[in-house]
This record gives sequence, structure tokens and C-alpha cells, in this order.
Amino acid sequence: MSITVVGSIAFDAVSTPSGERERMLGGSAVHFALAASFFDEVSVVGPVGEDFGDQELAVLQRRGILTQDIERIAGGRTFFWKGVYGADLNQRETLETQLNVFERFEPKLSQRSREAEFLFLANIQPDLQRQVRADCRAARFVALDSMNLWIEIARESLIAAISEVDCVILNDAELRQLTEEPNLVRAARRIRGWGPQAVVAKRGEYGAALLTDGGFFALPAFPLEQVTDPTGAGDCFAGGFVGYIAAQAREGAEIDHGLLSEAMAYGTALASFNVEEFGTERVARLTAEEIAERVGALAAITQLRERPVSLRG
Amino acid sequence: MSITVVGSIAFDAVSTPSGERERMLGGSAVHFALAASFFDEVSVVGPVGEDFGDQELAVLQRRGILTQDIERIAGGRTFFWKGVYGADLNQRETLETQLNVFERFEPKLSQRSREAEFLFLANIQPDLQRQVRADCRAARFVALDSMNLWIEIARESLIAAISEVDCVILNDAELRQLTEEPNLVRAARRIRGWGPQAVVAKRGEYGAALLTDGGFFALPAFPLEQVTDPTGAGDCFAGGFVGYIAAQAREGAEIDHGLLSEAMAYGTALASFNVEEFGTERVARLTAEEIAERVGALAAITQLRERPVSLRG
Repeated sequence: MSITVVGSIAFDAVSTPSGERERMLGGSAVHFALAASFFDEVSVVGPVGEDFGDQELAVLQRRGILTQDIERIAGGRTFFWKGVYGADLNQRETLETQLNVFERFEPKLSQRSREAEFLFLANIQPDLQRQVRADCRAARFVALDSMNLWIEIARESLIAAISEVDCVILNDAELRQLTEEPNLVRAARRIRGWGPQAVVAKRGEYGAALLTDGGFFALPAFPLEQVTDPTGAGDCFAGGFVGYIAAQAREGAEIDHGLLSEAMAYGTALASFNVEEFGTERVARLTAEEIAERVGALAAITQLRERPVSLRG
Repeated sequence: MSITVVGSIAFDAVSTPSGERERMLGGSAVHFALAASFFDEVSVVGPVGEDFGDQELAVLQRRGILTQDIERIAGGRTFFWKGVYGADLNQRETLETQLNVFERFEPKLSQRSREAEFLFLANIQPDLQRQVRADCRAARFVALDSMNLWIEIARESLIAAISEVDCVILNDAELRQLTEEPNLVRAARRIRGWGPQAVVAKRGEYGAALLTDGGFFALPAFPLEQVTDPTGAGDCFAGGFVGYIAAQAREGAEIDHGLLSEAMAYGTALASFNVEEFGTERVARLTAEEIAERVGALAAITQLRERPVSLRG
């Protein structure tokens, strides 16, 4: 088993109440790959420019991530995003987006990337997602992220892409916008009607919810006293989530509601580490022991102890 | 043991995407009392006008709630609130508030109400909350709710009131506003520094979080396909929460982080029933069996199953 991710590889400029970074490694594929690398071999598909150096590649390679499908475009510049977060970190404003090499990106997958059994289609143009999906014929489990932009300008393509995957991972405002259904349970059912067996609603500081035909499961975000930079948290969630599924499927586990629920804990844990520091800083030096410890702590703070109580009818 | 609640007794006019009601029984003390009545004897303290009839009293009395401290003001009219909810029910707008008999409310507690060991100070002017708190010398556990209005116009009184209770139950925007601290963990610690051992952050459709010196605990809201009217959900949460604590304390349980965590499940369950129908309609005919069943379902959808996984360091 192995995992392929297609998405952005970026330089991010970020300002948060904790400080700022002018130019740090980022992008959905990078965040996903670092998180998923704790569970399985990951191959990254995406373009970079000539400004993307060995130093950036080394961050991925040190985690054993396969980088041969990172295409360096001659004369190009790497995707650049600049944003600023508000005081409570729930709001962010995009100040600048330079698509650069992403403007004409055509995913080219090596044999190795095409043979992956797990695939994450990070937030890119939905027709590109469909193309990569079609290339990965061996994929047993495909998850997809998207954003409000594609819901607004490429809705039909996005729905077509969604109909070809197993799991949709969106934030809950996007789920509502996409389905035009304010109730989350009904919104998720509508999406499952298009094809996917599972819908994950990302809820920022409130955590995440999973909705499948097998039921509902939810976890709060791991409580942190210091959130430094939320950039990439959703992709780290996806990396922990898909990574865990891949790791357990490798051992013969069935991909059902129970397994996806367990995977939510690993997604939550990876996302919580990611936001502790800027960009990829924290996850890049994370250890397996720290992940296991945080999942245990998450279990402890969500475990509902039941004790008999006498109720007055 | 028994429970006293002081708060509003109201007629509400509500419009939601599911429909509307022109004049229905409501008010924080009413919602709290109905929810708490499944756990212990509850006495309601609050004023009503001459327009408040036996029919309304009977809704409380049918649940065994003590109504002798519901003071009927001669020539007065009952508190009236009119509001409209947006499509996703997270936003509501107050269209009209008639304080009426609340304008000159001075709580008068009978011996029975004063002797309660559990006290809920629902959202009323903080100096009145302090007065009731002082009257209830036998109270072992006092919880307090408030709102943005008092944070804005009576902040010092509110902080004084908070310093005299065991538990603060506020929505998370109010916690942030009150403490001027965007991080929930730090906001709760600041409030605990004023005196209370526990802080509950109500998060609407995302559920609720508990923060004590003993740790953090969170539950999602119970997922519902149809939310009809959120009015009173927070007070029903408080009723289930305080009620459960009272019921277990009656059996000798210690009031610690573990007990409060369990109580969160009962708060969540009662709130979830409340929103299924307008006003008090659903909780007024709820059964103990339905509560037990929902708490069991809530446990099932939040229980994190742990399975060994091999991580790549």
C-alpha cells in the first residue's frame, strides 16, 4: 500500500497574532504529505518553480516522502499565498495569491504514484482532480478536498469529481454552500447520494465530524493554550486521517465507519501539532511517540464515562 | 437535595425556518426547570404578570416543579421576547424585548427555595444573581449564566457574581468577550482565577466544552436532521447538567471533573430534545427512557475506539 497526494506546493507569507513569516514552505500537498508520512509511504504530485530549492525538498525527503513527481518548471515561480489571521484565528484574509506555475499545471504521475492504493486530491481545480483520479486505477480509497472558489466557479466539475471519490473532506461552511442545505446531517446525506461513502466536516477549533451510512462520529479539536498558525491544519488533518486508514488497511482492516472514526483521532492529532508552530515547523520534527501520546490524551478528554443515574419520569 | 433556579419566565414569539409561534411559554427558568425536573425537585423563582395563566403553570407542575416562588405581579405583564432565526439557525435576531414585570423584579425566596443545595442563576441582572446567591446559604454547587448585555453594561457586577459561584456556563463568544482572551483554554483559566472551579463553553451546533482544574472535556451536539427551534437550548443544557450533578451528589458522588464531564452528556441530551420542537413542547412530554436512550447514543457516537497502529518514526 502507499499514498499519493496531488495539490499545491507553496511558499506562504503568514501573519498571526503570534508573529509572522515572510516565506515559508507550505501548500496542501506538503502539509498532507508530512502528516501522512507517519503512516505510509507518500508520493507528492505538484509543480514548483525554479525558486524551490533543495532545502525545501529536504523537509519532505527527511520524512521519507517521495518527491520524484514534484515537477520543477523551468523559468517558473512557485505558488505563493499571503494571508493574515484575526485575533481569534477563526477568520483569515487572503492578501495575495500568485498562482505562478499552478496556472498551467498538468499533473504527470509516475508509475509509482499511479499505483498508490490511497489517494488524496487536495484543493485544486476539480477537472485536474478528476484527471488524477482516473490515472490512479488501483486506488482503494480516494479522499477529496476543495474550496469555496470551485463551488462558485466550477460547481458541476466539482460534483463530478466528488461522484468519483470515496470521501469528501470539507469545512462545514463549504458543505452548506455546496449542497445549499444548512443542516449538516442532510448536507452530508446529499453528498453521499452523489457517490462518496463518507463526508468529513472540518469545524476549525470545534474539531471535525464524520458522517457515513454507518452513522455519525465527532471529535473536538485538541485543546491548546497557544495556537500559533492554523495554516495547513485541514491538510494535516487529511494526512493523519488518510494515513491511518492506509496503515490499518495494510494490516487487513476493513474500511468502514469504525475505522474512519478511529482515523478522525489521528487527523485531529496531526492538525493539533500543525497549529502549534508556523507552517510545517512542528510536524516536520514530530515523532511517532508524540502522536501516540496525543491520541491517547484526545481519547481521555472525549471518553464519556457512564454511571447509573435514577431519573424522575 | 433540591434545586432552585432564578431567571426569566416568559412568553416568546419565535420565527424559524420550520415555522413560527406567536406566544409560547418560555424563559430561562422555565427551560432549565423542565430539563432539571428529571433529576431532582426544582423550585422556580421569578415574576410573571396577570397574563400568565394556570395553563402555563400546569406545564411546570405536571413535571413536579415547585411554583410557589413564581410571583404574580398585580397589574403586570409577563416578560416577552420576539426573535427570528436565520436559515442555518446559528444566527438569531431579537426583534422585540418587553421587560414588563422584570423591570422591577426583586427575587423573594421561600424557605424551601433558600434551602436548595443546587442553584442555577439564569441570565438576569448580575446584582440580582448575587442577591439570590447570598440567600441560598446551603448551596453546595451554584452555576451561573449571563449574556453580552451584562458584560457590556455591568461587567464589574458580573465578575463579582462569578466570583461567588462554582460554575460559569456561557457561550464561547461571551467567554471571549468577558475575558478579552480569544483562546478558550486561557479564557477559562482566567475565569477560574476569579473563583469558579468550572467553566462550560456552550458552542451551539458544535456542542459544549468543560474546563476545570482537572482538565478539559468536550462533546458535540447530538446530530439532528431537523432542528426546529433553538430557543432555550442553553438553559435546557444547564438543566440537564446541574440536574445530573444534583442527582449523583444525592447518591454521595463527589463533584469533580469526572462527574461534571458525565453531566455534560445529560446537558447535551436535554438540549437536543429541546430544539426538536418549538419552545417547551418536546421537553414537556419527554420521558426518562428517552433521555437514557439519547445519552447512550451520544456515548456511542463519541466513543473513540483505540486500535494498535504501527507508525513510521
